[in-house]
Amino acid sequence: MMARTGRRPGNVDTRSEILAAARQQFAVDGFSGATIRRIAAAAGVDPALVHHYFGNKRQLFVASLELPFDPTPVVGSVLPGEAERAGERLVRTLLEVWGTDNGQAMMQSLLRSALTDEQVMRTLREFMLETMVSPLVVEIAPDQHRFRTTLLASQVMGLAILRHVARVEPLASADPEMVVAAVAPTLQRYLSGDVGGA
Amino acid sequence: MMARTGRRPGNVDTRSEILAAARQQFAVDGFSGATIRRIAAAAGVDPALVHHYFGNKRQLFVASLELPFDPTPVVGSVLPGEAERAGERLVRTLLEVWGTDNGQAMMQSLLRSALTDEQVMRTLREFMLETMVSPLVVEIAPDQHRFRTTLLASQVMGLAILRHVARVEPLASADPEMVVAAVAPTLQRYLSGDVGGA
Repeated sequence: MMARTGRRPGNVDTRSEILAAARQQFAVDGFSGATIRRIAAAAGVDPALVHHYFGNKRQLFVASLELPFDPTPVVGSVLPGEAERAGERLVRTLLEVWGTDNGQAMMQSLLRSALTDEQVMRTLREFMLETMVSPLVVEIAPDQHRFRTTLLASQVMGLAILRHVARVEPLASADPEMVVAAVAPTLQRYLSGDVGGA
Repeated sequence: MMARTGRRPGNVDTRSEILAAARQQFAVDGFSGATIRRIAAAAGVDPALVHHYFGNKRQLFVASLELPFDPTPVVGSVLPGEAERAGERLVRTLLEVWGTDNGQAMMQSLLRSALTDEQVMRTLREFMLETMVSPLVVEIAPDQHRFRTTLLASQVMGLAILRHVARVEPLASADPEMVVAAVAPTLQRYLSGDVGGA
């Protein structure tokens, strides 16, 4: 579990205790409610040690879920460039990430645990929306950004499930650029187009 | 279990045996591979008795999953009318069905069991695509209908999950007509618009 992160192991017991405390806190308080300070207190260590081992709260959350990588940089690869092609960049980036072995493993385990465990689902939902989707949408379309965020998430999640978890053909084996061509206009409209309402 | 169907109970043991045999056959052979004849043989009854108790294979499948209603008529309510507004009719009908207590209960149990049980997922996916989505798409847009079908299913499934299972706000509480306005153009494009490719 620890070996995957590529960091020096430190005191393995201490790291395990911090991760266990983090999982507990994230489950109870959600991503935004949990604090490094209280996680450290629950693990009986100094907050500085938590930062030393895991970095910031987001990185600790990623470690506590045993994600094989931190998904947050996806946003960084999508934002730069023409706003009217952000939907295209987003779906292309997601398909690339999902297509890796790490991405596949992460998605399957995440989706299943998220949909069968209310607490994991709540924390993960909040984490994904707050750290990834919402900043993207706010940057591109500040009006109705919360509604746009959930619309975007609905198409992204459905695509992930059909293509990578349920593996429904022909979508599951379709060339990524074919999927980009089909789905990018949807994401672009949810990001910056007309979604009805105000 | 039986009482829900509103049919006369008949021999409860025989019905239970038929349903158990049906679940087994659907899991092993999928929806299209399973036959009433073999299900009857496995239950040790005459095929006519299966038809008598449950109707056709689709109705038997609905009963075997303990769905509170048969979702197939949704297609019948969407097809009539202008083809260019079928996406709008589809999302409006789905939101109505999902909004009922029966619909909510069905969706949550279905999605969870489908995503955690490979066999249920495979059978259900095939059932939904063959009996509901695909006929709709074939009628409206015969070209690329299999690809369109899975695109449509990806948005529908993501919407169901975000709105009714994960209950992500503001999508979860949004007025149905607001959701219709936002999502109908997506479904319409997947049904009959430009999705790239041939």
